[in-house]
Amino acid sequence: MSEGVNRRWLLKEYPEGMPSVDTWRMSEDPIPQPGPGQILVRVKWLSVDPYMRGRISPAKGYAKGVEIGELMQGGGVGEVTVSNHPAWKPGDIVESMDVGWQEWALLTPAQGGVFRIDPALAPIQSALSWLGMPGMTAWFGLLEVGRPRPGDTVVVSAASGAVGQLVGQLAKIAGCRVVGIAGRDDKLAWCREIGFDETINYHAAGDLVKAVASACPRGVDVFFDNTAGPIHDAVMKNLANYARVVQCGRIALAGQAGKPDMGERFIGHLIVTRASMHGFLVFDWYHRRDEALNRLAALAAEGKLETREDVLDGIERMPEAFMRLMEGRNFGKQLVRLEG
Amino acid sequence: MSEGVNRRWLLKEYPEGMPSVDTWRMSEDPIPQPGPGQILVRVKWLSVDPYMRGRISPAKGYAKGVEIGELMQGGGVGEVTVSNHPAWKPGDIVESMDVGWQEWALLTPAQGGVFRIDPALAPIQSALSWLGMPGMTAWFGLLEVGRPRPGDTVVVSAASGAVGQLVGQLAKIAGCRVVGIAGRDDKLAWCREIGFDETINYHAAGDLVKAVASACPRGVDVFFDNTAGPIHDAVMKNLANYARVVQCGRIALAGQAGKPDMGERFIGHLIVTRASMHGFLVFDWYHRRDEALNRLAALAAEGKLETREDVLDGIERMPEAFMRLMEGRNFGKQLVRLEG
Repeated sequence: MSEGVNRRWLLKEYPEGMPSVDTWRMSEDPIPQPGPGQILVRVKWLSVDPYMRGRISPAKGYAKGVEIGELMQGGGVGEVTVSNHPAWKPGDIVESMDVGWQEWALLTPAQGGVFRIDPALAPIQSALSWLGMPGMTAWFGLLEVGRPRPGDTVVVSAASGAVGQLVGQLAKIAGCRVVGIAGRDDKLAWCREIGFDETINYHAAGDLVKAVASACPRGVDVFFDNTAGPIHDAVMKNLANYARVVQCGRIALAGQAGKPDMGERFIGHLIVTRASMHGFLVFDWYHRRDEALNRLAALAAEGKLETREDVLDGIERMPEAFMRLMEGRNFGKQLVRLEG
Repeated sequence: MSEGVNRRWLLKEYPEGMPSVDTWRMSEDPIPQPGPGQILVRVKWLSVDPYMRGRISPAKGYAKGVEIGELMQGGGVGEVTVSNHPAWKPGDIVESMDVGWQEWALLTPAQGGVFRIDPALAPIQSALSWLGMPGMTAWFGLLEVGRPRPGDTVVVSAASGAVGQLVGQLAKIAGCRVVGIAGRDDKLAWCREIGFDETINYHAAGDLVKAVASACPRGVDVFFDNTAGPIHDAVMKNLANYARVVQCGRIALAGQAGKPDMGERFIGHLIVTRASMHGFLVFDWYHRRDEALNRLAALAAEGKLETREDVLDGIERMPEAFMRLMEGRNFGKQLVRLEG
């Protein structure tokens, strides 16, 4: 962190298909001064999340994306250094989705989405992971949309990722049989360590439809899907009657963003099984943020949640961290730790 | 109806793709005698329904299909002529899905699925249409799965069909704006007569995605889909946030039964809109049969339901009637009236 300088990652271009480390360019700007009601935050941790792929696409999404030349959007955790808001003081730890890929951020608490973090509760970067947005994703996506019942077979794709690791453990706590799918044996070994009953390496499985069938002999009751693509297709062919598919992510399609996703459709499977597919966005559930995070914190305090982070150091590595995520090279929640 | 003879349609072969009138062969057998607990029924009306396509496929479905050489499955209404069951007497009118494509049927009331029909309430063939299975399909599919709210835009495919005509009218009663899609202008004119706000001829519309967008400027809140195929695709690209898609049928795919349905998938649309797709089978709702039929009867008595039948005469026309349905040549609920 150079004195007086705020390093920021700006969007250079909308990538066609898979982004690259050259999708952004770094800008060095003066550290901003907080206006009325604002706080200045020295960023400590930046989050790297799959939703960011959608924000660098010109296609219409659920949220306003990043314009060319603008600061890249993203969540972060940091320390308040200057406050023009009565509820915040220097030294407070803050989490917000509005930080952006930069070293210093101005936040406006009155606009919402600015959360106080208790550093005594958990390492502060947890607020970007199991004790934050990915935790809420797993909590509400699994429990409110997937509605697991004891004895259900729950399949999770991207099983060792920030969301998948929590979905699997929450499903176990809910009395389910849990099958995790990922692309590397070390990830799957860890999934089994933290309680997954069975795992499938989708690179090594050969016929993925048969592999899912073999791991789920009574069919799949809840499919928490973070990937779309071939894993989705294989699980859809193994749905149990009345299955619920939580369509949370589509990381497998990151390289074809903006193009239609062609392939086999499953309308007949849905009718025959009376299954349902549910598009899920965690941002719909923020009014119940405290509920989810309090429960997750309680489970962690009881020793019932294991979590794993994948940390790179230095803001200069943000594009690299993002590409790790896009290509499944991260192992656990992808984070970037900033100096200072 | 020849004296002492029961004409019956037996499955001759599993059709590849689209069935034909040669998919079945007629057999002439003696009129059966009822055993203990059974009733003998002289069939008056036979139903022709899209689900029958699934019953003549060797693929695994939700129900046991018809074996080669077996009686074709189907619902019918008839008059009891001999009864070995204390609750039934000659002259009673009965409806059952277990009648089959034949002139005389043995039914076993204790096995369930055998319903008494009040001929004073409505023409008895209504028990195969709006006051029977298709009525329940519209009632539960729309109201329990689609969950329309006042002001919602509801799109119905196969809009003038046995189910579509009811879905549209129920959605209007529920305060919705209703758009019907069908393939012939006379069908669509009738839909508008019975209250649909707008209609789309999918043969004549040109760009169907744009046609749906133009008819649904605020997007589609409920899509009651009886067809799958290109109509489905066009509506899926016009979903409003939190839309519910009731996947009830897939008649547009009748010609490719057994083959995968390839094309564009809509996982991204589901996530961005947080919409849900629900496979629906009316047979899950038979425990609430009385509830739906009593309400439908009450609406009809108040003059709030228009219904339309498409009737062919003679059991020899069953395959022809079925092909009319497969090819969208029927106009309203397809029925066959038997002699006698």
